[in-house]
Amino acid sequence: MALIVQKYGGTSVGNTERIKNVAGRVAATKQAGNQVVVVVSAMSGVTDSLIKLAKEIQELPNEREMDMLLATGEQTTIALTAMALHALGHKAVSLTGAQAGIVTDGVHTKAKIANITPKRCHELLDAGHVVIVAGFQGETPDQQITTLGRGGSDLTAIALAAALKADLCQIFTDVDGVYTADPRIVKSAQKIPVISYDEMLEMASLGSKVMQSRSVEFAKKFGVVFEVRSSFNDNPGTIVKEETKQMEDVVIRGVSLDRNQAKVTIAHVPDRPGVAAKMFRTLGNAAINIDMIVQNVSAKGEKHTEISFTLDKAELAKAKKVMEPLAKEFGAEGIRTTEGIAKLSVVGVGMRSHSGVAAAMFEALAETGVNIEMISTSEIKISVVIDLERAEKAAHAVHEKFGLGKLK
Amino acid sequence: MALIVQKYGGTSVGNTERIKNVAGRVAATKQAGNQVVVVVSAMSGVTDSLIKLAKEIQELPNEREMDMLLATGEQTTIALTAMALHALGHKAVSLTGAQAGIVTDGVHTKAKIANITPKRCHELLDAGHVVIVAGFQGETPDQQITTLGRGGSDLTAIALAAALKADLCQIFTDVDGVYTADPRIVKSAQKIPVISYDEMLEMASLGSKVMQSRSVEFAKKFGVVFEVRSSFNDNPGTIVKEETKQMEDVVIRGVSLDRNQAKVTIAHVPDRPGVAAKMFRTLGNAAINIDMIVQNVSAKGEKHTEISFTLDKAELAKAKKVMEPLAKEFGAEGIRTTEGIAKLSVVGVGMRSHSGVAAAMFEALAETGVNIEMISTSEIKISVVIDLERAEKAAHAVHEKFGLGKLK
Repeated sequence: MALIVQKYGGTSVGNTERIKNVAGRVAATKQAGNQVVVVVSAMSGVTDSLIKLAKEIQELPNEREMDMLLATGEQTTIALTAMALHALGHKAVSLTGAQAGIVTDGVHTKAKIANITPKRCHELLDAGHVVIVAGFQGETPDQQITTLGRGGSDLTAIALAAALKADLCQIFTDVDGVYTADPRIVKSAQKIPVISYDEMLEMASLGSKVMQSRSVEFAKKFGVVFEVRSSFNDNPGTIVKEETKQMEDVVIRGVSLDRNQAKVTIAHVPDRPGVAAKMFRTLGNAAINIDMIVQNVSAKGEKHTEISFTLDKAELAKAKKVMEPLAKEFGAEGIRTTEGIAKLSVVGVGMRSHSGVAAAMFEALAETGVNIEMISTSEIKISVVIDLERAEKAAHAVHEKFGLGKLK
Repeated sequence: MALIVQKYGGTSVGNTERIKNVAGRVAATKQAGNQVVVVVSAMSGVTDSLIKLAKEIQELPNEREMDMLLATGEQTTIALTAMALHALGHKAVSLTGAQAGIVTDGVHTKAKIANITPKRCHELLDAGHVVIVAGFQGETPDQQITTLGRGGSDLTAIALAAALKADLCQIFTDVDGVYTADPRIVKSAQKIPVISYDEMLEMASLGSKVMQSRSVEFAKKFGVVFEVRSSFNDNPGTIVKEETKQMEDVVIRGVSLDRNQAKVTIAHVPDRPGVAAKMFRTLGNAAINIDMIVQNVSAKGEKHTEISFTLDKAELAKAKKVMEPLAKEFGAEGIRTTEGIAKLSVVGVGMRSHSGVAAAMFEALAETGVNIEMISTSEIKISVVIDLERAEKAAHAVHEKFGLGKLK
C-alpha cells in the first residue's frame, strides 16, 4: 500500500462537474489500494472574485485580512471535494491548512512553511479516509491564517508529501507534463518522462510555467519525487526527481523560448567600480526584474564600456524612465532599447559531462542564419538572445540538433 | 468606556457598499469611546449559493462538510468588514469563531456553544482594535469547524456579550425593533421600548420572527441585556432584559397574529389513557410540529371524546397521512381538517398581576363578531384560534382594547 499525495489546481476543480471528475480519479487511486491525500486549490475564478470584493472596499487591503479572505476559496473546494467522494461511497474528510498541521511564518500573503505536524492526516488515513487538504494556506504558531502566495497549492502538496513520507506526489494540472519544447511552437516536441530538479528549475525560470520555482526547490531540498500530469486525461506525465547518472546520457533535456524579452543598452559608461552596482540597485529599487546582463570587456586603455541587460518587455518603459537620469549622471552616450528579441535556451544536466554543447547550439543557429546578440550560461543552461522574427525557426533548429524530437 | 457587542445580519452586509455602511456605524461607536466587538453573518445570498453548490454534488451532504463549507461565508464577511474599518482609519482584526474562542459540541449544522474563551478578544480590544467575529460558527475541542444553525449569529453575539461581560449587545437587523403588533396589519402598532425575555420568547414562538427563541433563551440564562434595532436608520430599537416590577404595569405587551395555521380534529376517539400519547408520539416521529392541543371533557358516562390540534398549514397534508391509519385503529369517526384559520395571541408579564385579561380579550372579539374556535393559555400569553377572514379585524380590536396604539 502506497501513500500518494495528489494536487489538483483551480481549473481541475473549476465547477462541481469537474470536482466530481477529480473525485473519480481520487477514488480510483484509493481503490487501487493506496492511501490518498488530496490537495486542492480554489475553484478557478473564486480567488479573483474575492480580490475584486476586497478592492471594492480598499485599494490596498491589509495582508492579514487578505489571507483571512482568500483562505475561504480553498476551504470551499475541500468541503465540496469531500462530498463528491462521499457520493462515490468513499470515506473522506476535509482539513484546512491549519487543521492539516501546516505551520508557517507570519509573512502574510507569501508565508513560508515552517513545519508540518502530520499526525492528524496519518490518523485519518489509517482510519481509511481520503484526506482532503486546502492548498495555499497555513497557520502561524499563534493561530493566524496565512497564505503561501503564487503556486502555493503545489507547495502544500510537496511539503505534505515530504512530511507524510509519501511514496509519490502527483501534481495534476491542465498540461500533460514537461516537454522538450513548447509543442505549440515545435511540433516534434516530446514529453519528457523524467527530469531532474535542477533541469526543472531552469525550465521554470525560463518561463515554462508548469510550476513555480520555489515548489521545485522545496521538493529538491526534501527529496520529494513528484509527477506533473494532466487532470483531463490518463497519460503519464513527467517525473521530477534527483539527478541520476543516467540522466547525463541525454545531453540536452529541453529547449525553452521566451518571446517577451526586451533589451536595454547603455553605451559609453565609465568603466569604474560601482557604476554597474548603482545601475542595478536603481532598477531593483524600482522592482524591475532583470534577466541577462552582459558587459563587454573594455578595449585596452579604453576608459568606457557598454552594458546591456534584458528584461520582460512589459517593464521596458519603466526601466527606461529610471535609467535615463542615471545615464546622464554617468555621462553615458544614452540608452538604446530594443524590442523584438527573444531568449532561446537549452537546459540539461548532461552538459556537465558532454563538451561542445555551446558549439553545437551556435552551429545550429548559424546554419539557420540566426545571429546571436547576447550569450549567458549557467552550469546546466545556455541562453542566447536572438531576433524575435527568427526565434521559432531557431528553436526548431536547436531542438533538431540535439535530437529531442526522437525521444522514446 | 463601555464594551459593546454589535451584530449585523446578512442583509446589513449584503454587498460591499453595505459593509462600508456597517463599518461607519461601528466606527462611530468606537469613536464615542467604546470598545466594540462586531459579529457578522454571511453576506445575504452567499449561504444559499454554497448550499446550491453542495446539492449539485450530493442531495444530502455530510453535515461536517456542510459546516466546513458554510463557515466560509462568515469568514469572507469578517475580512471585508475589517478592511472597511481600516479604510476609515480604525484598527480592526477579524477572528473566525474558532479564533474567537467559541467552543461548541460536535453536533454539526446545529452545534451548541459549550463555552467561550474570550482571552484573545480582550487582548485585541485592550490593544485598541475593533474585533470582528464570524457569527454562526465555532469549533469543537478537537478542532472540528461547526455551525450553530438558524439564528446562529444572534447566538454568537449574545454568547460573546455574556463571556466578555459586555455592557450592551446590539442586534442590528432589517426591522426597527419589536412592535405591539405587525405594523403591516395594525397601522397604530407602536415600537416597544423595553420588553422582558419571557415576553420576547412568547413573541418569537408566536411567529414574530425578529429572533430565534434560543438566542433569547441564552440571553435570559446569562442575563445579557440586548437591543434589537435597524442597521438602516438611527432609531432606537427595543431593549430586551430581565423582567422588572414596572413592566407589570403594562397589562399586555403585544398582539401577535399567525395566519399560517390549520386545524385537525379527530372525532369520537375512545376516552382512555394512552390514546393521546400514541397520537402525538406518531406526529412527533413524523417530525410534525404541533402547536395548540384541545381535548373536550367527555360528558358524564360518555366513553368517547374529541381531540383537536393546530399546526402550520404547510404540514397539514403530512399530518393527515400519518393520522388516518391511527384514526381507524382507534375506531374514531374520522379526521376533519380545517384551513382558513388564524391564531391571535396577546402576550404580557402584566397578566400575572392583572385579572380579567382573558375576559377583556374575549369581549373585544365578541364586540367585533369574531367567534373563538379554540383557546390556549400560558402564564403570560392567551391564544385563540379564529376565522382567518376576520383575523385582521380581530387583531385591530384586541390591540385597541389594551390601548397598545397609545404607547409612549
